[in-house]
Amino acid sequence: MGRIVVKFGGTSVASVERIRQAALHVKREVDAGNEVAVVVSAMSGKTNELVGWVNDASKLHDAREYDAVVASGEQVTAGLMAVVLSEMGIPSRSFQGWQVPIKTDDAHGAARIVEIDPTELEKRFADGVVPVITGFQGVAPSGRVTTLGRGGSDTSAVAVAAAVKADRCDIYTDVDGVYTTDPRITPKAKRLSKISFEEMLEMASLGAKVLMIRSVEMAMAHKVRLTVRSTFDDPNAPQIAPDGTPGVPGTIVCDEEEIMEKQIVSGVTLARAESKITLRDVKDRPGVAAAIFGALSDESIVVDMIVQNVSEDGSTTDITFTVPDAEHDKAVKALKAAGEAGRFEYRTLTSAKGGAKVSVVGVGMRNHAGVAASMFKALADKSINIQLITTSEIKTSVLIDDEYAELAVRALHTYYGLDKQDA
Amino acid sequence: MGRIVVKFGGTSVASVERIRQAALHVKREVDAGNEVAVVVSAMSGKTNELVGWVNDASKLHDAREYDAVVASGEQVTAGLMAVVLSEMGIPSRSFQGWQVPIKTDDAHGAARIVEIDPTELEKRFADGVVPVITGFQGVAPSGRVTTLGRGGSDTSAVAVAAAVKADRCDIYTDVDGVYTTDPRITPKAKRLSKISFEEMLEMASLGAKVLMIRSVEMAMAHKVRLTVRSTFDDPNAPQIAPDGTPGVPGTIVCDEEEIMEKQIVSGVTLARAESKITLRDVKDRPGVAAAIFGALSDESIVVDMIVQNVSEDGSTTDITFTVPDAEHDKAVKALKAAGEAGRFEYRTLTSAKGGAKVSVVGVGMRNHAGVAASMFKALADKSINIQLITTSEIKTSVLIDDEYAELAVRALHTYYGLDKQDA
Repeated sequence: MGRIVVKFGGTSVASVERIRQAALHVKREVDAGNEVAVVVSAMSGKTNELVGWVNDASKLHDAREYDAVVASGEQVTAGLMAVVLSEMGIPSRSFQGWQVPIKTDDAHGAARIVEIDPTELEKRFADGVVPVITGFQGVAPSGRVTTLGRGGSDTSAVAVAAAVKADRCDIYTDVDGVYTTDPRITPKAKRLSKISFEEMLEMASLGAKVLMIRSVEMAMAHKVRLTVRSTFDDPNAPQIAPDGTPGVPGTIVCDEEEIMEKQIVSGVTLARAESKITLRDVKDRPGVAAAIFGALSDESIVVDMIVQNVSEDGSTTDITFTVPDAEHDKAVKALKAAGEAGRFEYRTLTSAKGGAKVSVVGVGMRNHAGVAASMFKALADKSINIQLITTSEIKTSVLIDDEYAELAVRALHTYYGLDKQDA
Repeated sequence: MGRIVVKFGGTSVASVERIRQAALHVKREVDAGNEVAVVVSAMSGKTNELVGWVNDASKLHDAREYDAVVASGEQVTAGLMAVVLSEMGIPSRSFQGWQVPIKTDDAHGAARIVEIDPTELEKRFADGVVPVITGFQGVAPSGRVTTLGRGGSDTSAVAVAAAVKADRCDIYTDVDGVYTTDPRITPKAKRLSKISFEEMLEMASLGAKVLMIRSVEMAMAHKVRLTVRSTFDDPNAPQIAPDGTPGVPGTIVCDEEEIMEKQIVSGVTLARAESKITLRDVKDRPGVAAAIFGALSDESIVVDMIVQNVSEDGSTTDITFTVPDAEHDKAVKALKAAGEAGRFEYRTLTSAKGGAKVSVVGVGMRNHAGVAASMFKALADKSINIQLITTSEIKTSVLIDDEYAELAVRALHTYYGLDKQDA
């Protein structure tokens, strides 16, 4: 007996047949006595098709028209889901973003949700009706339709869950949870029963493409318990958590306090195709880092790892950072141009494509000294050379040669006891 | 210098390329100094696809969800048209039905337009912006999206034209106007420069599927001058009417008064696959016709021609009528059942499928005696037997054997001087 917001991604609603499969999960929750609201993405592939048409119509299209066109995809699946649910005997009705309303700012194409008025939705809960809401979209103060940017449906679901004070927000997708690492790299990867918001954020930004960062941030801010689970699981099977207890047969993303026994390391992640760029003997003066990274952000290049070492004489410094391989050439060109324009001084620029970033993530790190040192030792045991190191409170990342990427992930996964964990 | 509403059908916006072609017609009108509003259908095939999905989701779907899903098609083309126009340097923005708003009743799936508030559109005209409006849809008092039923985009266009008091409503389609008869039956068919609303109504309901009847009725009621013209004409060619004068290179549908020299007959139409059903010696008493046709309308069977003859003794009558061949079996079954139930009495029921209804239409008939007689003579000259006759003020129809259908159309086309007309 609770209130649950469930969200289905594009592959989960790719056809009427799949919508029917997804609806069975809704039915199970309704039959268990829960109040349920549904948030849907567009059929997979549909948004790309619509975006293609808009780009074809004009490279310099108005973002407001882009939104009007692209938002149509969710409208279709919301209506179809409501029809399928009603057919199953579950009273249901669809809501478009403007009908709820889901109020956003006017940043068309990448709008942020400002407010969701829960009145309409509360009314449906009271009437025993399942509202089916278009994800990814809202309405601007101007009354025009907005979209939230890619992956926005997760954010819509979390925002709806926060607005109606849901007990849980279930993100149904094509994977069955969050794993300790990519199962394609090691079959020993284990599904986690629970993971903290902070860990999920680090995992999400490090390439575990299960949840959009933005939705995790919002869930953390509003204390919305998220679950990640598979639409393609048998909807009528007993609900058993990965640790064998009754619960959600997926991963729960929740407050750290909820996780009783914290793993030192919860997961190992891998991001490939990272370019390393080093500026040597940069004349060290206030604002030099701002000048360098300003030159990159002017070109909309997102920098990932940043390391700065102090040089021997103290007047110059070496700065190394990584960018995606695809941005390598653009970044080098921008830096050289900025150097020539006198925005900063340096002696040499060296760069290399094809690095691999391997990270270990875990809230347990906070209270355990020596995680970084042990990580370096585990890699040294396999003769893997470390090129760069960065750390945060709950994460340690190293850049290594791509050749060693899988080896490093497997070694760390074993080293931190993730192979045998059953949580 | 005027105000024009232009409407593009599904084949005219079937791809981004075609939308670009359509937009050139808008550009020509804007460049000529006109205020222009655009109404668009969904890409051809798209509405059928959406309807298919809804039916697949449930045969007994909620019409409100049907509308939510199906209305998405026009949303896409409206946005794309606005993008394409802007790209051409014509400021433009899209409007969905609820944004105008186009207020309808709540008869979802077949809603009627109640009111269009012109304020938003007038504002765009004043700002030199071309509004692009989704056809076929509106918003119900409940705030839910409605659709107007098939062909509703023509109706939307006429309603918008009436609301903004447009000088003209141009219906762009894949044919270049209204013809004296089907050009596939006789190459001598001529495009009409002008046709009256009344004639167009008769033509539309008789199988000249150029304009939806509903939109013509609305245009007549609100005195909106309609034109029917082709999207695929060269948008930059001189605008020459079919009669050789400068004007609209299509057919204008307008008030009878505007048509100076009225043809006695403006067109010859053909409707095939008509079944003839005769009830002989029907016991004549008040309400007997209501009983017979009530039995048919209970089964949603639409009856076309109806003829009643009085029998010799005055106490019984023969009633003959036509229904589409596809409804023949259902109609016969319904009549027999109603007869057995004692709703009316008759001696025999005979029926035959495969009739062809040939009609001559023209407002000039009103003032010219003998049009019907001359029609029968023209057919007799070709030894064509007439099975049924019905007449209205501006139309005479006969049912004949389908074998003679084309021959009859060509004979009448020639007989009434349409082969050589140049108007």
